[in-house]
Amino acid sequence: VTSNPIEQLEWWQHDRLTYRGGSLHLGNRDLTWIARLQRHVPAFVYDIQQISNNFARPKAAVRAAGIEGRYYFAIKSNRHPVLLGHLAAQSVAGADVCSPQEALYALQCGFREADISYTGTAVTDADLEVTARLPDMWVNCDSLSQIRRLGALCPGREVGIRVNPSTGLGTIHYGGEKSTKFGIYRSEFRAALELARTSGLKVAGLHWHLGWGFDFSDASALDKALTECRWFVDQVQDLARINIGGGLGVPLRSDERAPDLEAWAKTIARHLRGYGAKICFEPGTLVAMDSGVLVMTVAFDEVKNGRRFVYVNGGFNLNPCPAFYDIRLPIVPVTLDPAIASDAGVWTQAAVAGNINEAIDVFAEDVWLPPLHEGDAVAMLFCGAYGASMASNHCMRGQFSEYCLV
Amino acid sequence: VTSNPIEQLEWWQHDRLTYRGGSLHLGNRDLTWIARLQRHVPAFVYDIQQISNNFARPKAAVRAAGIEGRYYFAIKSNRHPVLLGHLAAQSVAGADVCSPQEALYALQCGFREADISYTGTAVTDADLEVTARLPDMWVNCDSLSQIRRLGALCPGREVGIRVNPSTGLGTIHYGGEKSTKFGIYRSEFRAALELARTSGLKVAGLHWHLGWGFDFSDASALDKALTECRWFVDQVQDLARINIGGGLGVPLRSDERAPDLEAWAKTIARHLRGYGAKICFEPGTLVAMDSGVLVMTVAFDEVKNGRRFVYVNGGFNLNPCPAFYDIRLPIVPVTLDPAIASDAGVWTQAAVAGNINEAIDVFAEDVWLPPLHEGDAVAMLFCGAYGASMASNHCMRGQFSEYCLV
Repeated sequence: VTSNPIEQLEWWQHDRLTYRGGSLHLGNRDLTWIARLQRHVPAFVYDIQQISNNFARPKAAVRAAGIEGRYYFAIKSNRHPVLLGHLAAQSVAGADVCSPQEALYALQCGFREADISYTGTAVTDADLEVTARLPDMWVNCDSLSQIRRLGALCPGREVGIRVNPSTGLGTIHYGGEKSTKFGIYRSEFRAALELARTSGLKVAGLHWHLGWGFDFSDASALDKALTECRWFVDQVQDLARINIGGGLGVPLRSDERAPDLEAWAKTIARHLRGYGAKICFEPGTLVAMDSGVLVMTVAFDEVKNGRRFVYVNGGFNLNPCPAFYDIRLPIVPVTLDPAIASDAGVWTQAAVAGNINEAIDVFAEDVWLPPLHEGDAVAMLFCGAYGASMASNHCMRGQFSEYCLV
Repeated sequence: VTSNPIEQLEWWQHDRLTYRGGSLHLGNRDLTWIARLQRHVPAFVYDIQQISNNFARPKAAVRAAGIEGRYYFAIKSNRHPVLLGHLAAQSVAGADVCSPQEALYALQCGFREADISYTGTAVTDADLEVTARLPDMWVNCDSLSQIRRLGALCPGREVGIRVNPSTGLGTIHYGGEKSTKFGIYRSEFRAALELARTSGLKVAGLHWHLGWGFDFSDASALDKALTECRWFVDQVQDLARINIGGGLGVPLRSDERAPDLEAWAKTIARHLRGYGAKICFEPGTLVAMDSGVLVMTVAFDEVKNGRRFVYVNGGFNLNPCPAFYDIRLPIVPVTLDPAIASDAGVWTQAAVAGNINEAIDVFAEDVWLPPLHEGDAVAMLFCGAYGASMASNHCMRGQFSEYCLV
């Protein structure tokens, strides 16, 4: 949160998300038009082209660092069929899936089986049956149990192993005191390799995930984490792929920085280029989060007990990031008179409250907003990932639309 | 969490939820049978009769305290149509709704319009249009804006006002430093009454909600809260109803106690009986939480890095209480050999992990469990409220069934 209402409008604007003629535009489309169409129903708006563009940046950095990369979009972050169909048809990326249902859905949206990478958790026999029907899909095994059962179902199959390096990065990370549920730890890794051998699987890949929302401002942390990861790499011969997961963040506040992708790629290259494996990436947040907004309508704007509340026609059931993960996203007016945009004096701080009957349903605590009226539209930014894909019908407030700008 | 694996099986058992012949029974039905039917898909199982029975306890306490009560089931806690149809047909309770969608759904399930009480937040013009079509539904206004707009639509209507006493009770409560989004505070209350008058509404009721999960072990806290609330009651003539919301909890651990409903009712009577209004109650958790379980299948049971994990075929998207509210619910085997049930030596502590690819997706951290195998069923208790009604399709792991035992 900046202390200046005008500055808070500046840091996030770029070519494809900016005010023009007093109206917020996403991907050159006027959001006032969508707000008018929608009126009574909140709408996610996705800039599909921006998601494609966002893949170009890590790809270029990886290429410049001399790494051969493969890219998989984490579809749990956003599985809108138009988006998935576009990524598949344009060969922007493959699909990173974490359930058999997501694997089948990726196929339904046009991804080729060989372009799907499946890394599950709590994998059941029923999940494995679907896996067996997809022999060209890549599978990373997350447990000894999965290795044993997959070997029995699919002898001879090449697989990866998800490992847990007991270290992490970012605002949500996977290190810590207690062991997390994910992957195979050092303590079980040799047993896993031996079990794969006796189960008839060929271990041709490794996978790890270090966390979420990291910007690599602390380059030594990545260095240290990859050093831990290399312990696993050094145990396996002839790796075809090393999958380093996702987790790269985007700046969500004016004081956060974008990840330095060049430094990131160089660090990865220094650690992993020598093994001759393809390096796989699973971006979700990095490519999708800044490519979508959630347009909502103001129900009313009222001071309660000395505190200003702007009430909107959506709730935390449409985007859990603010209430459940404490990730506070900027909220701005869709229509903004240039005179108001330049007059700091008419902006005051407000809480933006949703329409769910729980006290936690507050999107923003102290955001600067001009006076707003019933029916005015506001946009919550950075809603391209982990919004609609996690939505629920809590309080039967689950109705929303999704617009794909292509 | 108790330190004794056998004791942890005892405190929650009662007539309608107990082991018989080595199998967990809910409402006299064998959950092993449901687990076998379901196998690949998690299932909520609700004991409809238990929910009805649970209404009898607060009703008896209220009657004994000399209060005339009205009861509304908070349908946001569980809106299964069979449950709602039963409550309506048997006249167990009316429906407490918090959105127009819930109001219409309550009608669809058989509730009479006059037996619906609507207390919304962030109420839009579109919401008010539905309200106007339901003249016999009771409405509690949550803001000055709602009073003004409802008055314009429905002149002459009798309404309630939701007030905010700036105080709260329980594990989730509505007091605190910052003003919450709910209700009308003291500072705006006289303006609200005046606005109602000039808008042509007749204020015939008050509503407040004090929190969630309270047991009244601190009787003086309720006393203090109701003293705050009475300030509002004293400002209004001829109140037809005073609605004191919901929030009464049930014990979720062996060291928690059930609310003393007699003391609770007597305290309410002492404060509110003299006003001649009907006292309205909106239980959700109190009546529904202990009347449902979530049956899941074990994917596998494995030690990772020295920590035991039992992986199940459901995730936090089916019940957000553990991951998002840190409300840890007991998890027990559905089938339990009596020899194992009495031999503490074979039980060890485990984390119970779900099938969502997020580190927070762990239902329990250190629960005692006997050895479990792929396909064994476990039941998470206290899933009759705020489970299915908040479920999402995150990671496309959203499939579940619901069984209503009637």
